[in-house]
Amino acid sequence: MKTEDLKTVRRFVKDQLSGDTEHLDALTDKPHQVYEAFRETGLANWWLPEEYGGRGLGLEDGVEIVNEIAYGDAGVAFTLFISVLGTSMVQLYGSEELKARYLRPMAEGGTFCATLGSERNAGSELNKMETVVSREGDDLVITGDKYFSTNTDFADFLVVVAQAADNPEEHHAILVPRDTPGVEIVKRWDVIGLRASHTYQVRLDGCRVPKTNQLEGSGLRLLEIGLNASRILIATTAVGIARRIRDHCMTYAKSKPFRDGTLLQSPVFAQKLGQMEMWIDVMKGHCLRAARDYDAAMAEPNAAAVFARQGTLKTALTAKMFCGQAAWDVASVGSEMFGGLGYTDEHPVGKLVRDVRYVSIVEGGDDVLRDLLFSRYVIPVPRRS
Amino acid sequence: MKTEDLKTVRRFVKDQLSGDTEHLDALTDKPHQVYEAFRETGLANWWLPEEYGGRGLGLEDGVEIVNEIAYGDAGVAFTLFISVLGTSMVQLYGSEELKARYLRPMAEGGTFCATLGSERNAGSELNKMETVVSREGDDLVITGDKYFSTNTDFADFLVVVAQAADNPEEHHAILVPRDTPGVEIVKRWDVIGLRASHTYQVRLDGCRVPKTNQLEGSGLRLLEIGLNASRILIATTAVGIARRIRDHCMTYAKSKPFRDGTLLQSPVFAQKLGQMEMWIDVMKGHCLRAARDYDAAMAEPNAAAVFARQGTLKTALTAKMFCGQAAWDVASVGSEMFGGLGYTDEHPVGKLVRDVRYVSIVEGGDDVLRDLLFSRYVIPVPRRS
Amino acid sequence: MKTEDLKTVRRFVKDQLSGDTEHLDALTDKPHQVYEAFRETGLANWWLPEEYGGRGLGLEDGVEIVNEIAYGDAGVAFTLFISVLGTSMVQLYGSEELKARYLRPMAEGGTFCATLGSERNAGSELNKMETVVSREGDDLVITGDKYFSTNTDFADFLVVVAQAADNPEEHHAILVPRDTPGVEIVKRWDVIGLRASHTYQVRLDGCRVPKTNQLEGSGLRLLEIGLNASRILIATTAVGIARRIRDHCMTYAKSKPFRDGTLLQSPVFAQKLGQMEMWIDVMKGHCLRAARDYDAAMAEPNAAAVFARQGTLKTALTAKMFCGQAAWDVASVGSEMFGGLGYTDEHPVGKLVRDVRYVSIVEGGDDVLRDLLFSRYVIPVPRRS
Amino acid sequence: MKTEDLKTVRRFVKDQLSGDTEHLDALTDKPHQVYEAFRETGLANWWLPEEYGGRGLGLEDGVEIVNEIAYGDAGVAFTLFISVLGTSMVQLYGSEELKARYLRPMAEGGTFCATLGSERNAGSELNKMETVVSREGDDLVITGDKYFSTNTDFADFLVVVAQAADNPEEHHAILVPRDTPGVEIVKRWDVIGLRASHTYQVRLDGCRVPKTNQLEGSGLRLLEIGLNASRILIATTAVGIARRIRDHCMTYAKSKPFRDGTLLQSPVFAQKLGQMEMWIDVMKGHCLRAARDYDAAMAEPNAAAVFARQGTLKTALTAKMFCGQAAWDVASVGSEMFGGLGYTDEHPVGKLVRDVRYVSIVEGGDDVLRDLLFSRYVIPVPRRS
Repeated sequence: MKTEDLKTVRRFVKDQLSGDTEHLDALTDKPHQVYEAFRETGLANWWLPEEYGGRGLGLEDGVEIVNEIAYGDAGVAFTLFISVLGTSMVQLYGSEELKARYLRPMAEGGTFCATLGSERNAGSELNKMETVVSREGDDLVITGDKYFSTNTDFADFLVVVAQAADNPEEHHAILVPRDTPGVEIVKRWDVIGLRASHTYQVRLDGCRVPKTNQLEGSGLRLLEIGLNASRILIATTAVGIARRIRDHCMTYAKSKPFRDGTLLQSPVFAQKLGQMEMWIDVMKGHCLRAARDYDAAMAEPNAAAVFARQGTLKTALTAKMFCGQAAWDVASVGSEMFGGLGYTDEHPVGKLVRDVRYVSIVEGGDDVLRDLLFSRYVIPVPRRS
Repeated sequence: MKTEDLKTVRRFVKDQLSGDTEHLDALTDKPHQVYEAFRETGLANWWLPEEYGGRGLGLEDGVEIVNEIAYGDAGVAFTLFISVLGTSMVQLYGSEELKARYLRPMAEGGTFCATLGSERNAGSELNKMETVVSREGDDLVITGDKYFSTNTDFADFLVVVAQAADNPEEHHAILVPRDTPGVEIVKRWDVIGLRASHTYQVRLDGCRVPKTNQLEGSGLRLLEIGLNASRILIATTAVGIARRIRDHCMTYAKSKPFRDGTLLQSPVFAQKLGQMEMWIDVMKGHCLRAARDYDAAMAEPNAAAVFARQGTLKTALTAKMFCGQAAWDVASVGSEMFGGLGYTDEHPVGKLVRDVRYVSIVEGGDDVLRDLLFSRYVIPVPRRS
Repeated sequence: MKTEDLKTVRRFVKDQLSGDTEHLDALTDKPHQVYEAFRETGLANWWLPEEYGGRGLGLEDGVEIVNEIAYGDAGVAFTLFISVLGTSMVQLYGSEELKARYLRPMAEGGTFCATLGSERNAGSELNKMETVVSREGDDLVITGDKYFSTNTDFADFLVVVAQAADNPEEHHAILVPRDTPGVEIVKRWDVIGLRASHTYQVRLDGCRVPKTNQLEGSGLRLLEIGLNASRILIATTAVGIARRIRDHCMTYAKSKPFRDGTLLQSPVFAQKLGQMEMWIDVMKGHCLRAARDYDAAMAEPNAAAVFARQGTLKTALTAKMFCGQAAWDVASVGSEMFGGLGYTDEHPVGKLVRDVRYVSIVEGGDDVLRDLLFSRYVIPVPRRS
Repeated sequence: MKTEDLKTVRRFVKDQLSGDTEHLDALTDKPHQVYEAFRETGLANWWLPEEYGGRGLGLEDGVEIVNEIAYGDAGVAFTLFISVLGTSMVQLYGSEELKARYLRPMAEGGTFCATLGSERNAGSELNKMETVVSREGDDLVITGDKYFSTNTDFADFLVVVAQAADNPEEHHAILVPRDTPGVEIVKRWDVIGLRASHTYQVRLDGCRVPKTNQLEGSGLRLLEIGLNASRILIATTAVGIARRIRDHCMTYAKSKPFRDGTLLQSPVFAQKLGQMEMWIDVMKGHCLRAARDYDAAMAEPNAAAVFARQGTLKTALTAKMFCGQAAWDVASVGSEMFGGLGYTDEHPVGKLVRDVRYVSIVEGGDDVLRDLLFSRYVIPVPRRS
């Protein structure tokens, strides 16, 4: 990416996400002024196409950006990139009119959108969702309860996946403006990490939108496609967190007395950090590779069709699985590095452990991803690595 | 142990540590009424010898008790057993007069003692401690800063390990009544788990006690000996926590819809729980074995000499190492079991992960323990397993 | 166990299993003279009851013996203890007449028996076995192919598990003398480790025995019961192998130049060996504990009924699972310890890695054991650890 | 790479490395005719520059080629690529005359070269080597013993690293024709895997060569540089082996009866294979990335200087570490997949486990690589990932 943009991101991280950052781990009530500060960099929603006033950066650039922000705070990073899940569905499968009306303001205002997929009984098995959408004249009416949805309260619009009232096998993805009557925030979840982000339980009570708000294609397939970018960026937050843990270890080791010198001279410490660096290097390279796969598909003239055919990208799955597992290893080792201090809130490693845990949980646990990898990329011989 | 005592403990856990227990994870300011409730069971400080009015239960019984309490809350368990670290030093190496004066009230009142060993620069390397004790006539005067010390604020007395002012190679362990002038609580640590427990940073500013308060033998050796019981019980909390995680998994699986039934029918779930049960079974057996080793040494007519010769018991080391590692595996798997819900404060697994983390950190990280195992029990050929 | 017996075993190991032992890894054609040497110690088939002329040693003693022999060679250990699988079924569920006729010669002659359970399509799922036994007058006639059976060729008798010809849900365990017409050795398996042992594929072609040779109870249940002792002893071989690897590491480190001294002074080496010792200590303790569980059941006046009710002992499952996994960790670390030399046949670690691999494979892979643990000891709440 | 070349490689693998391949695991005495067959493809020593008559393929192509060959047999792959270690030193740091004289015949004849670095006491610490080179007029005379050197017996020439006789701090790399008097093969090592390859212990007894045979620069640094390509290709063999294991699992699962169907329908099997595929995908991507790093440096106009400055490439270290560890995981899981059959020589998984073990051992064990990563790429802040 452009050196200047990267510098901008780093300045943002330095200004907003270092120093006294307790509020970032405090489940405060409203979106932080930190998001306003990011908007001012001009990089908010960096992926939105230039034709709608966006920066049009590819996912490879997105990995660089998210890696930097997550180094500062993964919850902030998550808040700033997770809109891509909804916008990529709209961008690929929405009408020109929808895109112009909804993506342009997001590009210009640095605002947010939310995606409403999972439900209480439809987490790892999305086909069990019970939210239904029914056709009434030229409108669609949506009713149901959605469990985990990020940014919803302050989003411009929601992308809701729902079951067709007249066919339980069919699902649709529908753009619902946030101010549609019937969109009710049930509660904000008290998450154990990523606390600068805001994830909600939401009720949709007869939300009525024009049928032109429906995206083209199967709602479940569209969701799967949208998850490609967000899974790769979730994986990327693991890289940022792992790098942060490594750097905390190095800082600590420089001043921690150990035998006749400092911990930095300890051969055992060197081994741990060498292993960490290996994980980090492989993680980062793999996120970039997954992003290039995504960008390549996106660059196809018929990207919507390409994605519709492929669904879940292989490297999006392997990136999230791998980074979640590797970063958990880094965090597990890191959390034992600081002695008793690391077991107190005076050291950030406890927060970093809580933050990184989400990588293997949200947008498909490893069990779900392994099943997908197996059925899509191991069973069919030519798709094996 | 006596069935009746075990029943009493289970009733205590049910009454005090189940249901609405948010306060146990809340860093509240004062020792909980829960400790008063435990005192009422008559089991407080269950290990104190009958000759001083105690119940005189062995460490094997202690493992059973702590396993039960830690199933309810590990912080409560830690608070209730950690006095054993100080009392066992006093019991083995204190004068009859000291024992009568200080152990009896603890047995009768169910009160607490604290041990002050670690310092800012003396965690894994206790020989770096800078707290000094000097002889002034018939008194000892102690000055220094101690980093992590549990129960101190509300303890009857402290067992302080300090360097001899006139010989940096020599260390003493001295009983210091809590109300000795100069004992100052610097702060309570905001720990990330075990939040029902209270761990303090403490300043000792010219604390003066009679020289008869000094325990017999090298202070560092005595501390090492005292750590035998507490390390085994710390290991045991890992068992309790792991059992709790397993049971949460089972409860969740019974009602979680999965494919055509519930998660309980999932073969993948069965594999995870089978592996968990294996860890738990081996952990529990090993804690009991370590406790039997301890009880056997304690039953020797010359237990003080036996322990002085042996120092760190092998199984005390292997129990803490093994249980810390195995329970971290259980917790890592468990924390991914509940989908997004497990990433919120509405599910206790996040707390259990934070709680269990302490096992591999306090009273010697695994690096320290591996070094001890190697030098004490691998280098000398006949001491190998 | 008696010190003298242990000394005898150690002398046997020193005389027969150290020095030039290439033949032990060479798949030689006939049972080694090493077995003759063991017979001469008087300890052959040490577990056979005194009433049949045996030594009557318990399984706890068996763990000590097997630990020593497996330190020398796991294949020899396996050969020497695996008869317990068959004899324990005969001892518990055979008629007095059968026991007198078949166990006594084994006790006196130090001979062998074999158990024929698994088949090509009935490994992890024994209920799929296709060998059938039919009743013809006062005889039983058995026909089928058995896949993996150790010691068969030179056994006194076989214990065959077969499906009842008239009821596919029913299985029987039948004692078949080795010289029964129709017992055909198809081949000896070229195993990748444990090469001093002899495992065969066997055809049973209309083998006719008196119906009194049938053991009492369900054949599958009896097999499960017989596996208790053998699984615990298989787990024990992992201890012996792991100890051997550790000792090879120590020997190597003493003379291997490293920086200014030898590898023995390397802090990283110390960490690895400390971790190994922890595994070994926990493994050994757990095997002994499992053996005590077994001995306790065996000491019951109605042991046959106790075992019939319990089937698979919990600790027999956890011992084999745990030791297989832990020893694989030890072997994995150990196999990287000797540089390039460890990748050649000039160093025994390669053989030890091949040997130890069997622990997690034979008599139920970990998947099978986890399923058993889950269904038998996690689902029923009171049986949880 | 060119589709045609890849097809050629695959045909070679199909023709030469499938079917009856027992000889590949048999430590046969002479280079296999398989190498002759590879020479006939025209791809032998594919990396040699076009100016010397070679194919001039980059390392990225090399990864594709080695991945394919290692799928067939890792020992064959190792034999075919390991000459790159020596030729890359000659290519970068040899005189034009040396290159013309020695690289051209290798390109044309598909012959081999060998590198002699490690010694009995200089494995992980190459600076301890005791082979010395002294200057005698216009000649260099080399004497010493080299431990592990592959292809030596049938190589055209050797690249020997030796200590300067007049300065123990200085080392040189010298090209020594194989037929130089004094080059003596001490023995071929009986390696536990990669048995189609030939690794030798070699004595250099006063080997005399012209001083123009000396490569330019520090011998240890040159060796480090040469190891970049070979470490990346060693890592790549792990990918090929892991893919082979995965495919064996799939083949087995298709016909293995399991419950009411085959193992292929088992959800537990799917999880294992999904996890394997993740490892494989990340491994392969990382090898390609490391190769691109190498190719980029090689494409610089002053590649020799670039490499001299950088020494060990970061991704070469992380590739070998990561692939060694990940493939060991794949092999560990894979080796338990086939029941008892997998413990016999009738199934190839045992061989694949032995083969893959070498990745974490040769050309620097993980301890050595972690130290290098730490000192070169973690300590210097800007070089961190």
